[in-house]
Amino acid sequence: MTDIVVLVSGGGTNLQAIIDAIESGTITNARVKAVISNKEDAYALERAKKHGIKGKVAKKAELLSAIKEEGPDLLVLAGFLVVLPEEIIREYENRIINIHPSLIPSFCGQGFYGLRVHEGVLSRGCKVTGATVHFVDEGTDTGPIIIQKAVEVLPGDTPEVLQKRVMEEAEWKILPKAIDLFSNGKLVVKEGKVEVLS
Amino acid sequence: MTDIVVLVSGGGTNLQAIIDAIESGTITNARVKAVISNKEDAYALERAKKHGIKGKVAKKAELLSAIKEEGPDLLVLAGFLVVLPEEIIREYENRIINIHPSLIPSFCGQGFYGLRVHEGVLSRGCKVTGATVHFVDEGTDTGPIIIQKAVEVLPGDTPEVLQKRVMEEAEWKILPKAIDLFSNGKLVVKEGKVEVLS
Repeated sequence: MTDIVVLVSGGGTNLQAIIDAIESGTITNARVKAVISNKEDAYALERAKKHGIKGKVAKKAELLSAIKEEGPDLLVLAGFLVVLPEEIIREYENRIINIHPSLIPSFCGQGFYGLRVHEGVLSRGCKVTGATVHFVDEGTDTGPIIIQKAVEVLPGDTPEVLQKRVMEEAEWKILPKAIDLFSNGKLVVKEGKVEVLS
Repeated sequence: MTDIVVLVSGGGTNLQAIIDAIESGTITNARVKAVISNKEDAYALERAKKHGIKGKVAKKAELLSAIKEEGPDLLVLAGFLVVLPEEIIREYENRIINIHPSLIPSFCGQGFYGLRVHEGVLSRGCKVTGATVHFVDEGTDTGPIIIQKAVEVLPGDTPEVLQKRVMEEAEWKILPKAIDLFSNGKLVVKEGKVEVLS
């Protein structure tokens, strides 16, 4: 059984997708041990509570110890807007998963988070965007890519409308899928690339 | 009727896709007036001949006059490895279409052409790539995007295998589609972005 700690800063819709996938059996062999937020009022903590999952609040300095207390096998960043301390990244190498709302290497790196990603896509006039689940390394969105899924940009899209479509059509599908693969030992990292075992 | 001049340097598989789409009626309201190659031995010239299309050879310095002689409404770069002179780009603003074998802005710009694009995709470990048809401006792959199509990267892909899949699943579909839209007056460029009229 893979014990997951989910790190969040906001509403927690990706956390909800994970919880739903575990309850429906889309993710097997895993459970959410705790949800840790850097913000007391993150709605994600409410979601955790509703499903009987422990919720914790931790500032950056307390983060490592708050995580270690739970002894997780996997950390999932689900809209976590704090840059992870390097010691956490080293301690949990290839055991931290992040979701980014674009097709990396497009519209990623410093400054590209939340709506800014979708503003970038629309401002370049792209017709296809998507989302990426990747392992976290010391860089910003530079870690090994696990899954990507493309999403169409449609005429009249605003950043908000596009954000919602990318969540619904990509993020809420590939994040649970990646967790399921991890939990069942299907992900192998070799030379900075992810091999998905069948 | 839209008169097209196709510029090529090599085998001309994208030229073939255009010819086939015109013959099958996938592209309406357009014909290939001439094929111009910078190389005498480009197989694309053979393809043109087989279909009764005029073939010409022109070096960079003669290119503008060779094009002007044909009086085209649209220039299509179909694997043309010469940087277009600026005067051509200005003369045919928003009337030059290029196909690039990635999802711009990923893996584009100087140095990214042919197999190098696919090597870049595999070396980053991307799981999704694709192709982009765009209007040509003064930059390298910076012009307004007309259509993009995503293509899956699969386990075991080599650059050659991936190149072939991107051609078959994306390039040979979206290039004819873009030409058909152009020929039927469906493409409007506003503030560097392409609006596709329905």
